[in-house]
Amino acid sequence: MSVATKAVPHLMTLADLSTAQIQRILSYSHFLKRTSLPWLEPVKPRKKVAAEDAARPQRRIMHSLNRKTIALLFSKRSTRTRISAETAATLLGGQALFLGREDIQLGVNESVRDSARVIGGMCQGIFARVGEHEEIEELARYSPVPVLNALSSLWHPTQILADLLTLHEHAHLFDSSVEPVIDANGALADKPLPKLRPLTVAYVGDSANVLHDMLVTYPRLGHQLRVASPDNAKYRAPTAVWDRVVELGCDAGIHWTSDPREAVHGADLVVTDTWISMGQEAEKEQRLKDFQGYRVTEALCREGGAKADWKFMHCLPRKQDEVDDEVFYGPRSLVFPEADNRKWTIMALFE
Amino acid sequence: MSVATKAVPHLMTLADLSTAQIQRILSYSHFLKRTSLPWLEPVKPRKKVAAEDAARPQRRIMHSLNRKTIALLFSKRSTRTRISAETAATLLGGQALFLGREDIQLGVNESVRDSARVIGGMCQGIFARVGEHEEIEELARYSPVPVLNALSSLWHPTQILADLLTLHEHAHLFDSSVEPVIDANGALADKPLPKLRPLTVAYVGDSANVLHDMLVTYPRLGHQLRVASPDNAKYRAPTAVWDRVVELGCDAGIHWTSDPREAVHGADLVVTDTWISMGQEAEKEQRLKDFQGYRVTEALCREGGAKADWKFMHCLPRKQDEVDDEVFYGPRSLVFPEADNRKWTIMALFE
Amino acid sequence: MSVATKAVPHLMTLADLSTAQIQRILSYSHFLKRTSLPWLEPVKPRKKVAAEDAARPQRRIMHSLNRKTIALLFSKRSTRTRISAETAATLLGGQALFLGREDIQLGVNESVRDSARVIGGMCQGIFARVGEHEEIEELARYSPVPVLNALSSLWHPTQILADLLTLHEHAHLFDSSVEPVIDANGALADKPLPKLRPLTVAYVGDSANVLHDMLVTYPRLGHQLRVASPDNAKYRAPTAVWDRVVELGCDAGIHWTSDPREAVHGADLVVTDTWISMGQEAEKEQRLKDFQGYRVTEALCREGGAKADWKFMHCLPRKQDEVDDEVFYGPRSLVFPEADNRKWTIMALFE
Repeated sequence: MSVATKAVPHLMTLADLSTAQIQRILSYSHFLKRTSLPWLEPVKPRKKVAAEDAARPQRRIMHSLNRKTIALLFSKRSTRTRISAETAATLLGGQALFLGREDIQLGVNESVRDSARVIGGMCQGIFARVGEHEEIEELARYSPVPVLNALSSLWHPTQILADLLTLHEHAHLFDSSVEPVIDANGALADKPLPKLRPLTVAYVGDSANVLHDMLVTYPRLGHQLRVASPDNAKYRAPTAVWDRVVELGCDAGIHWTSDPREAVHGADLVVTDTWISMGQEAEKEQRLKDFQGYRVTEALCREGGAKADWKFMHCLPRKQDEVDDEVFYGPRSLVFPEADNRKWTIMALFE
Repeated sequence: MSVATKAVPHLMTLADLSTAQIQRILSYSHFLKRTSLPWLEPVKPRKKVAAEDAARPQRRIMHSLNRKTIALLFSKRSTRTRISAETAATLLGGQALFLGREDIQLGVNESVRDSARVIGGMCQGIFARVGEHEEIEELARYSPVPVLNALSSLWHPTQILADLLTLHEHAHLFDSSVEPVIDANGALADKPLPKLRPLTVAYVGDSANVLHDMLVTYPRLGHQLRVASPDNAKYRAPTAVWDRVVELGCDAGIHWTSDPREAVHGADLVVTDTWISMGQEAEKEQRLKDFQGYRVTEALCREGGAKADWKFMHCLPRKQDEVDDEVFYGPRSLVFPEADNRKWTIMALFE
Repeated sequence: MSVATKAVPHLMTLADLSTAQIQRILSYSHFLKRTSLPWLEPVKPRKKVAAEDAARPQRRIMHSLNRKTIALLFSKRSTRTRISAETAATLLGGQALFLGREDIQLGVNESVRDSARVIGGMCQGIFARVGEHEEIEELARYSPVPVLNALSSLWHPTQILADLLTLHEHAHLFDSSVEPVIDANGALADKPLPKLRPLTVAYVGDSANVLHDMLVTYPRLGHQLRVASPDNAKYRAPTAVWDRVVELGCDAGIHWTSDPREAVHGADLVVTDTWISMGQEAEKEQRLKDFQGYRVTEALCREGGAKADWKFMHCLPRKQDEVDDEVFYGPRSLVFPEADNRKWTIMALFE
């Protein structure tokens, strides 16, 4: 409880971290994953185990969350983020205490200030998935323990960490001189995380939280960003985000257009997200019209001139509108390793 | 994660298991229960403990779920099944992650296929209680980790395992040559699970998931089944179930009638279930009429000619319609040991 | 499971405990807190740890809930109580299984009797937060495992234990001869819980569950209670409560008035609670009128003649009506240490 007088290390967006810190989190996530995965396989008959034990990487004894509790304050549903967080906390020996909209209504029965102080007095961290970004800022202002942004209207830092981990693990797909550390089944070799060559990354879709954390991160790591969104202010990054982009000097590495074909030109990787987020169902018809031509398909990328072996990522859940089955379930798709990696990067953050 | 290429051992119904596998699960459930129960007693003053420790069975160190997570996908409420699963996972050192209808809506925001793959990528097993049986079949098709059926429209395998464990533990009630291993308070002797003599089992009520797993299991284990349900196709086993019954040669051990008195004739055990399951409230009046005379009472069993010392089981929750208080709370009733055993059999399956 | 024949130690109100038992729980709560807090600090680099380890109090290895489960039956929302219970169970190596109104509806699909027996057969304790007090009495009647009252219409024993722990920890504020064991940041010295001198405690507000447990407890511990509530039978303690007060001889230590200024006269401590509890929103206007002049402020306590250094407590969540910001967030307020202590006292009870 003596933490109240120290500066508490919150995480609202990757813009809050240096590139060295980001790289450290990625390496550590990979280390946790590599050393934990073999131990999560089903238990086998005793005699087989002894032989295999000798072969598998030394297990990391993770005491860091031992009997501690991370509160998950989720005012909006987010199954992927929730399962990542709960399984990660369990692996670390602690627990994630899920509090959904039925369980706690921030600011309704009690001020956000009081809730932050009370929850922070009993838990050792808060992982918050709120609506408006101001809400999580207010939580962080009053919480005596670290607040991690699990997803807000403006930012989505843990998703971009998972994306980067996935890209590093698949670095050999972009650079034939890199030795693979992951096989087609997801089995990891007992080796450090490979370096990733500078990529051209196309984002085709709405300017939302996923893109925002890409904007403040990818250019700093040496990747070029090419973004296509419809020609309308509401599909562009809001000032609060763009200010951080400029402050970090990332704007020089970003090319913005309203033509999806122009965006995918020369792309190593194409990323999209749903156009119709929770709460935007009313605007659905208008949005479907505005995003006409934005669906990621083989044809779009061929016409736009993406690299021959472009890959695809999507933060899920996916709708049919923004990407077709051929791409989504096809060999270009990294979406499921990307989803699995939500767990390992969140685990590294909890530690 | 390398499991994707192996055949994943799902469990949809006991028809999927051989009798040897069923017997092995029962023995193992009993072993877990016998060695764990003494350790779940309240902690006592230190000096008493040392003496008692010497007396109690060796504790089994259960590492199998250590820090692992089983996802509980429950699109319908099922308190008993849920508590069984959560306490079992905790005892095994892991966690059960409950995802109710508020938390995840299979097939609504995301396809069942994508959800199965994502959840299976982060959890080590899925225990699913869904609506239509097709839904769990689809989950199993795409999940990289084992899917256990916690209850579907067609099958209820974990209930029948608990029923069988209960019958074996009480084998001495049906056969005076068997030495009792359980006392009136539920305390277990440190002995193997007794053998059970062939029983005549009467089921009086609707042909639903509980009965269906009895149909594909009891005859294979040597027990005779006598079933009474109203004379109407909707109260009989559907084709998908009956095909499995015939395939396993169980039909020869089943006598079906519409007269409850005929069904209980010679019965060692009488089993029933609610006639009005969740979602059938609309048909209530019609069902009450159709099931007139089906209430399990002392009178019914006397008139029908059940054995003098017949016993009673019910999977709970119980309504007043299908059984009266005299039987339900009386000395014939095994319903509460039966409910307790949900935990130990699910625990064996998780391992 | 052999507990069914023994008397099960339930806890409905502090009136069920002797003062010696209450003191023992407080001392033990303090011991748990003092020895656990340093271990809940964030993990530090390895070299720093060794040096600090030598300095911190011996960690208590808490096996008592090892892999056990406490069911939390909460038919009404209570975030503070829930988080306290879940973090406490985790710290003790067990789990709290939260069952809210969405998860279980006592008495709807199943009788309270059957639910109590089934849940008690699978869990090792029940912590219940129900509506009418009769409901928890019925749970306790049929449960084979201890039932702790987490909050009912009549009583709130765990809140008063937390209040008493907070007062003892801050005994130096009321008695300059006591050596402080807690600093402004909440850091605890490695010392036993100090003795508390007899206090004059004013309660200003509605006669509800928090006050009721104060009525049966504070006078027995030597403290004077001065209560102000509006002149209306519905704001006075109901007969079921007052009978226990008289039975324990507590009435001699209680002064009841309808004038809040009279109540705070000579007070060391002023306590209040919301006037508009969950479910009373309809009466809001009438209640605001009835409680006019009951808001705890500096002015009220000055006019009434409270001690110069009076302190303030509130069980939270707080509304603006019953206390102003100056008092609530000011230096007199012990509300946040009081909230933190919910965890440690519940933890002691679980053990």
